[in-house]
Amino acid sequence: MAVNLPLPVAASLKPVNGIELGFAEAGVRKANRKDLLVMKLAPSATVSGVFTTNRFCAAPVQVCKAHLEDLHLSDSASIRALVVNTGNANAGTGEAGLIAANATCTALAELLGCDGSQVLPFSTGVILEPLPVDRIKAGLPAAVANLKADNWYAAAEAIMTTDTQPKAASATVVIDGHTITMTGISKGAGMIRPNMATMLGFLACDAKVSQRVLDHLVKEAADHSFNCITIDGDTSTNDSFIVIATGTSGLEVTSVESPEYEALSKAVTALAQNLSQQIIRDGEGATKFITVTVEEGASSEECRKVAYAIAHSPLVKTAFFASDPNLGRILCAVGYAGISDLDVTKINLYLDDVWVAKQGGRHPDYREEDGQRVMKQSEITVKVKLGRGGVAATVWTCDLSHDYVSINADYRS
Amino acid sequence: MAVNLPLPVAASLKPVNGIELGFAEAGVRKANRKDLLVMKLAPSATVSGVFTTNRFCAAPVQVCKAHLEDLHLSDSASIRALVVNTGNANAGTGEAGLIAANATCTALAELLGCDGSQVLPFSTGVILEPLPVDRIKAGLPAAVANLKADNWYAAAEAIMTTDTQPKAASATVVIDGHTITMTGISKGAGMIRPNMATMLGFLACDAKVSQRVLDHLVKEAADHSFNCITIDGDTSTNDSFIVIATGTSGLEVTSVESPEYEALSKAVTALAQNLSQQIIRDGEGATKFITVTVEEGASSEECRKVAYAIAHSPLVKTAFFASDPNLGRILCAVGYAGISDLDVTKINLYLDDVWVAKQGGRHPDYREEDGQRVMKQSEITVKVKLGRGGVAATVWTCDLSHDYVSINADYRS
Repeated sequence: MAVNLPLPVAASLKPVNGIELGFAEAGVRKANRKDLLVMKLAPSATVSGVFTTNRFCAAPVQVCKAHLEDLHLSDSASIRALVVNTGNANAGTGEAGLIAANATCTALAELLGCDGSQVLPFSTGVILEPLPVDRIKAGLPAAVANLKADNWYAAAEAIMTTDTQPKAASATVVIDGHTITMTGISKGAGMIRPNMATMLGFLACDAKVSQRVLDHLVKEAADHSFNCITIDGDTSTNDSFIVIATGTSGLEVTSVESPEYEALSKAVTALAQNLSQQIIRDGEGATKFITVTVEEGASSEECRKVAYAIAHSPLVKTAFFASDPNLGRILCAVGYAGISDLDVTKINLYLDDVWVAKQGGRHPDYREEDGQRVMKQSEITVKVKLGRGGVAATVWTCDLSHDYVSINADYRS
Repeated sequence: MAVNLPLPVAASLKPVNGIELGFAEAGVRKANRKDLLVMKLAPSATVSGVFTTNRFCAAPVQVCKAHLEDLHLSDSASIRALVVNTGNANAGTGEAGLIAANATCTALAELLGCDGSQVLPFSTGVILEPLPVDRIKAGLPAAVANLKADNWYAAAEAIMTTDTQPKAASATVVIDGHTITMTGISKGAGMIRPNMATMLGFLACDAKVSQRVLDHLVKEAADHSFNCITIDGDTSTNDSFIVIATGTSGLEVTSVESPEYEALSKAVTALAQNLSQQIIRDGEGATKFITVTVEEGASSEECRKVAYAIAHSPLVKTAFFASDPNLGRILCAVGYAGISDLDVTKINLYLDDVWVAKQGGRHPDYREEDGQRVMKQSEITVKVKLGRGGVAATVWTCDLSHDYVSINADYRS
């Protein structure tokens, strides 16, 4: 049961000129479910991505990075397709995993008439098990056969694992007289604490954006969206966030200093925030959507440390689940977040509009019933003021419930 | 239901000459439960402790540190008593909390005929609520009235909070012809990831140990016991581990270079490990006792990073709860532990005697049923070999179950 997350309306998901999507039921792990997605791109498209920093990064992540790196060595090459399977992460699979990921690319390239290096592969699912590459290859013709521009809803379904519902959104923005259409999909509900991006987010727009500019844009958007969410603090082996600019509209962005870049980056970031927050709202077992904002820090890094300490504390998360204003647990997390010269007498803590702790101690006017009122809400903002400077950071998370334990205790069964 | 943790047998807990213990039902938070403990020490006793590194450290921790610091300024002063309350942590309580902790010390000092600075105060319980100091003061005469040398079992009961059973152990060791008797108690079941020591451990022996030597010994023992355990990664505001040497036996230890020191340190550390592991066995909701050993590291710090990443991962912990050999989750945690130059092709992973991952990938001979067999046990050792050097570290933890969520969602109700 996701937190305030209505099902996307398929008709509201706008096709993006220059990209077609096709899906199949390949039986990667389970029969009779969409588990294979192909995205075919126009030759004019540029693609950029950010990936997990987990040292055990999955084979498809390594192949994606290599294929994107090739782009920078050649002006004429371009990415022509993406292929995504669920049910198996192809991580912890060593050399055999790399061979399997490359074989998937080659098989799709043959169907589309391009080179294997022009395909980016993505996998999500169980770690440490061999990728059933033959079943994936066998499913590709069906996915290619149903490639369509308005398949975004089905695409969002095809990349789900423990997600309870598909995650997708569209937006348009007018820049320099051109209407730019953007649509994105994401998935993920556990093993979520992205450290570059999350597993998986795909966002396409029809602007024409040079490779160098798109590389800059994808990092900027990720840093303000997928890199600000956490469910359980587990940084996945497969996190990938990809931005595609199909280049089919009249808008061309060639410099990160231009007003067009600023407008496009703002719009892409807003849509990426939407997609990343959908992951939190559908977090495994989530019953509350929590915004943790840390202000008055000396650096962005220390604000994020404090925000993540709060967002990862099992005690804070269970208190939210119980709607119990046991708010000392938040101060406790602030205290162990790792700021060695923190002066706790300068700390102020707020829960929405309620001033809970003043100068490191309980606010004299704080009443339990005020804390209780906020804790019962399904959307809560925790605000900590550090009294050390002028920097702020925000992290989005959810609570820790019985269902999180159930889901992860049962995941493979 | 604790994991393989029999109730201590009261008769097996040996009195330590030079220390008497008394308890009372002060009604700090709930009526009709032992919640106040007094420990009275012989004038010959030396005392040393290590405390939480949480910046929001509780008022009693600050007072303890100040009183122990005073000892180093005066050769004649000594600690004569310890006082412990449960039900309220006296943390996040600001100046009023310090006044309350000092008032408790003064009240006990008056009853015992010493100075308030010769008393060490300890509190455990809810954070951010004022300490009911009047109820504690009112309970002190009863605690003093029942001071006895063989009250260790009742003392262990008096410091419990969410613990399901008291934690205590005794040991004797013969050093240089003298039989040294040691008894200790501990408490704690949640908010456990000590970063100096845990809330709370008290260990007394009857050796005579100089202050400087005892300061060294307490750190050494803590680093190999309480500083190696974690339940939920939450470093408490009140962690304290105290070693008391009553000085009533014939053994005198005056140098950390002596064979007597080595023997005593070894015995104290073993008992401290026993007490700290009892905390894990009684961890909130624990059904499994997990030993995480990381070998072949380049430094102790990186081994501990990897061990804690595994021990804190909610996904790893729920897999243990489910007895599900979803062991890729362990590799995933190794990958995000923060070793930036980790070469995953050198990683080997074992579950007890089962070789799961070889050179970063699934071992070709690994069979699911072997992993399943070990995962079903109540005691499991995870061993990771990093292939980077000759250093090792061990951390003890438990699984994450539905009961952890229940206990912490209901803690204050």
